[in-house]
Amino acid sequence: MDSDFGIPRELSDLQKLRSQYQPQLPPCLQGTTVRVEFGDATTAADPSGAHTISRSFPHTYGQPLAHFMRETAKAPDAQIITEHPAIRVGIVFCGRQSPGGHNVVWGLLDALKVHNPKSTLLGFLGGSEGLIAQKTLEVTDDVLATYKNQGGYDLLGRTKDQIRTTEQVNAALDACLNLNLDGLVIIGGVTSNTDAAQLAETFAERKCPTKVVGVPVTLNGDLKNQFVETNVGFDTICKVNSQLISNVCTDALSAEKYYYFIRLMGRKASHVALECTLQSHPNMVILAEEVAASKLTLFDITKQICDAVQARAGQDKYHGVILLPEGLIESIPEVYALLQEIHGLLRQGVSVDKISSQLSPWASALFEFLPTFIRKQLLLHPESDDSAQLSQIETEKLLAHLVEAEMNKRLKEGTYKGKKFNGICHFFGYQARGSLPSKFDCDYAYVLGHIGYHILAAGLNGYIATVTNLKNPVNKWRCGAAPITSMMTVKHYGRGHGAATLGKPALHPAAVDLKGKSYVLLRQNATRFLMDDVYRNPGPLQFEGPGADSKAVTLCVEDQDYMGRIKQLQEHLDKVRSIVKPGCSQDVLKAALSAMTSVTAILSVMSSPTSGSTPY
Amino acid sequence: MDSDFGIPRELSDLQKLRSQYQPQLPPCLQGTTVRVEFGDATTAADPSGAHTISRSFPHTYGQPLAHFMRETAKAPDAQIITEHPAIRVGIVFCGRQSPGGHNVVWGLLDALKVHNPKSTLLGFLGGSEGLIAQKTLEVTDDVLATYKNQGGYDLLGRTKDQIRTTEQVNAALDACLNLNLDGLVIIGGVTSNTDAAQLAETFAERKCPTKVVGVPVTLNGDLKNQFVETNVGFDTICKVNSQLISNVCTDALSAEKYYYFIRLMGRKASHVALECTLQSHPNMVILAEEVAASKLTLFDITKQICDAVQARAGQDKYHGVILLPEGLIESIPEVYALLQEIHGLLRQGVSVDKISSQLSPWASALFEFLPTFIRKQLLLHPESDDSAQLSQIETEKLLAHLVEAEMNKRLKEGTYKGKKFNGICHFFGYQARGSLPSKFDCDYAYVLGHIGYHILAAGLNGYIATVTNLKNPVNKWRCGAAPITSMMTVKHYGRGHGAATLGKPALHPAAVDLKGKSYVLLRQNATRFLMDDVYRNPGPLQFEGPGADSKAVTLCVEDQDYMGRIKQLQEHLDKVRSIVKPGCSQDVLKAALSAMTSVTAILSVMSSPTSGSTPY
Repeated sequence: MDSDFGIPRELSDLQKLRSQYQPQLPPCLQGTTVRVEFGDATTAADPSGAHTISRSFPHTYGQPLAHFMRETAKAPDAQIITEHPAIRVGIVFCGRQSPGGHNVVWGLLDALKVHNPKSTLLGFLGGSEGLIAQKTLEVTDDVLATYKNQGGYDLLGRTKDQIRTTEQVNAALDACLNLNLDGLVIIGGVTSNTDAAQLAETFAERKCPTKVVGVPVTLNGDLKNQFVETNVGFDTICKVNSQLISNVCTDALSAEKYYYFIRLMGRKASHVALECTLQSHPNMVILAEEVAASKLTLFDITKQICDAVQARAGQDKYHGVILLPEGLIESIPEVYALLQEIHGLLRQGVSVDKISSQLSPWASALFEFLPTFIRKQLLLHPESDDSAQLSQIETEKLLAHLVEAEMNKRLKEGTYKGKKFNGICHFFGYQARGSLPSKFDCDYAYVLGHIGYHILAAGLNGYIATVTNLKNPVNKWRCGAAPITSMMTVKHYGRGHGAATLGKPALHPAAVDLKGKSYVLLRQNATRFLMDDVYRNPGPLQFEGPGADSKAVTLCVEDQDYMGRIKQLQEHLDKVRSIVKPGCSQDVLKAALSAMTSVTAILSVMSSPTSGSTPY
Repeated sequence: MDSDFGIPRELSDLQKLRSQYQPQLPPCLQGTTVRVEFGDATTAADPSGAHTISRSFPHTYGQPLAHFMRETAKAPDAQIITEHPAIRVGIVFCGRQSPGGHNVVWGLLDALKVHNPKSTLLGFLGGSEGLIAQKTLEVTDDVLATYKNQGGYDLLGRTKDQIRTTEQVNAALDACLNLNLDGLVIIGGVTSNTDAAQLAETFAERKCPTKVVGVPVTLNGDLKNQFVETNVGFDTICKVNSQLISNVCTDALSAEKYYYFIRLMGRKASHVALECTLQSHPNMVILAEEVAASKLTLFDITKQICDAVQARAGQDKYHGVILLPEGLIESIPEVYALLQEIHGLLRQGVSVDKISSQLSPWASALFEFLPTFIRKQLLLHPESDDSAQLSQIETEKLLAHLVEAEMNKRLKEGTYKGKKFNGICHFFGYQARGSLPSKFDCDYAYVLGHIGYHILAAGLNGYIATVTNLKNPVNKWRCGAAPITSMMTVKHYGRGHGAATLGKPALHPAAVDLKGKSYVLLRQNATRFLMDDVYRNPGPLQFEGPGADSKAVTLCVEDQDYMGRIKQLQEHLDKVRSIVKPGCSQDVLKAALSAMTSVTAILSVMSSPTSGSTPY
């Protein structure tokens, strides 16, 4: 099955042009003399989980941040890595294919070769299964020629998405030893980077010399934390989907007779739906995070949409566009509980046709209330991460169905006096994943590939490559690396009879922050979007001219650059130290002491585990 | 409900750039002195229907073709229209919104104003309903500013798609008289242009001075005949869909585990599916015309797909992309017969839940065999043109379901030994209709708008605007007009007990020509497409650079230019006449006579109604 991977292929004219695009590198990665500065030892963002994480990852927890800088940068403690022996590195695609993945491979290859032309890059064929089966392809510039800046994962392919069981981990270790790998780069999202951290820990424990590096590539955009601002693929997916959503908005406005319900990919979190809303201004979006936070029931959501339809009918508007994230269904409390029961029974080996008879009375009542097509979809086996098969559950049809029933009821009762409600459903899933990557994703992925090399050259293990300050042009980007363990959290599960069990430390999909700037922006505009049809049409993905260099709205609004601020803080601390040296005046010392006492007091309070501040 | 139409709106950067694009005009339409040359009187392409058509359209049948030429063109009989009094013209959107529609309005406005700044263009708000209700908006350059080169029909909107009943025709006539219209331009496809012809005839009969002009705008691409090479909107729709199809192909190749079934819009005919296949090279397409011609049953189609899946499994390939036109379902003989029974019962007023019990035994057997979701969809009321609600019938799900069942059966029986079959379904419908129009559609629509004016200036009624030689650059395009009646055909329906009834003369959707060059090209490549994954990715719609000026493959392959050849023939005949004038030598006369005798003999045989040649 791997015979087709990596073969040269015929490109269309546009693909050819794109294949000749050379992504820029930020100044710190240009040339061959990159300096590494190590920051302080990292902790976990959630202090309450720190102990658990440190126990599970004794070899890889608490490692320092790393910053990559220009040779000429003023950083007294930074080292220049001068030796660049030939190394052998393996690379593997995990998880859903995301536009830009190929450029990580390209960036890594370029960095390897520019530092030592004798270094070797081996691509594992067919994803994690290829890693375990030790199927490789040597990646060269020739092999890459028709894959540069192109979408998909078809250079190397991907299959199952996990390297987690003891058997799988052992097989991966064998592969790395057998192939004499100095490094293994894992391209993926939340799950795959958790696996990467686990591999790194196991390799360290067993004295396997292969260092493991993760690269954040996932169209869901949910590998997001203080160190990682966004993921490769997210930008493209949102642009392609926004193009289609705005086409549908134009369509709705032209015929004025349909409500379109559009479900978007993105797994549990609603980042894609939020970003697409900010790009294309549909009438309504229902985020999974809102529903979970307000514990909205199916009935509540239906009512919310019906009230909106009725308000618009009051302005003689009988059309609209409503976005739904695929994770919405799991966030509805009663549906979630039903799914938990179903999954529990499936795990006990109960056959699908027997499940409905074994549900608890209330779950059974809900199940019977739902239309047949949804029942079938809820009965599907859960995915490897225990979530429902979100891409297969047609939430858009369920809601369109419920809204139509409710509107007909209101019409009959006379509480609604407008025209008959007409819903049309769409699922925007697989048609965006294989897209040509946007310029942003091409650049970001290529730079991350380079950083992957520098992490290995610095001898680091269990790190994820990071680029921050992404909302600014490439020449302002800051490159670094953070231990994957520092992004982990530990979940407390309340299972069965009130006994809370601790989950394994892991990366978890970041939810949309309902206090964050992006969400606030959405709320500020929600009424205008709902009533005024201020549809925005960014048009099809362009590579030149207006829009070609635009970035995700959420990325620009959120103003993150945690890594930049960490560096700034370090500079302040260094400055204090250099000013207040023994021999300085009593006054200066007193002032410093007084100021620092107050700073430390405030921070102690803010970062105590009981202060209730949620991790980022 | 019309208060929002035509209001200025905020454009994205790309939309702004596009709004400044100025389409070219072919040389014959530049300046203000356009010559009109009238060709011979037209006949209908299908000689057997000519008599019926001439009887139904006594005032508008048999009118000559018109060619528009430069002032300096050598054409002795051509007239220059020198008088351009101020006129009042109405314009109305009918039928499915198609990208480029706005540019017809723009082209018409520009032509009106350049010939007489006092002329007026009235847009009917809300489509044919707006025409009937006499709701208008005066279209000016200011009103158009944010609609030039933009998708959708939201400048004027559209509603119901017909002007056909006596009441509707009378209301339209009243509107044209009341508003003092010199011309009425109808933008639409097959149905709307048939309505336009009927209006033209009625207006002529009742001595209403308003001349009616049709413009071929339909994303289905099925208003196609000797005079009309393609329709506005078709190019964009095929490009947007091909982008998405090729994304899905890349996706399939990356994960190697899914078969994607994609249903495409296009009504009864499969032009969109054929064009998209030639642009993006998916593994398989099943055209409605093939199925109808070979009388393939549901079972045959399922077997055909299963055999393909099995052949690919033999090469260790477990992924693929299969395109299905929405018209496929109606072309399957037994499903068509079932639909006829259902529609018959619906017309008799039988309620939906009683229908299954009143079907004939064999129809009932088929109905019961089908999955529930399809049964529901087949029971929907037919559309105004008597076809099923094709966009609502999920043929892709039906086939994926049948293929999965058959593959599982083969697996059980041991006749198939590969991996389990996994199907994923998509409908690419409404997400393309509202797209920004391609450069081709912008140009084509704008030129057609100009021609609309010249048809009115020449005093013609019941004509459709035509541009031929479209595969060449704009400066080679030939502009003309043909009576709509010359494109009509008469269908013979075999109803009930063998008695054939004659249908009304009408434009009918052109089917994909199974002897045509495009289809031959598809067949030549079918095996390679099926087995070798030679997916082609044209990428997202671009407005600059590679691909921006590309045209539909079918348009380029088919090499039509009927209008150009008609003109050439006329030139030959003129030349013969000018050489063989009284006084020429006996030898010349003899040679001419001998050659012409043989020509006329051949043509008489070829164009006799019994020769069995199908109309174009």
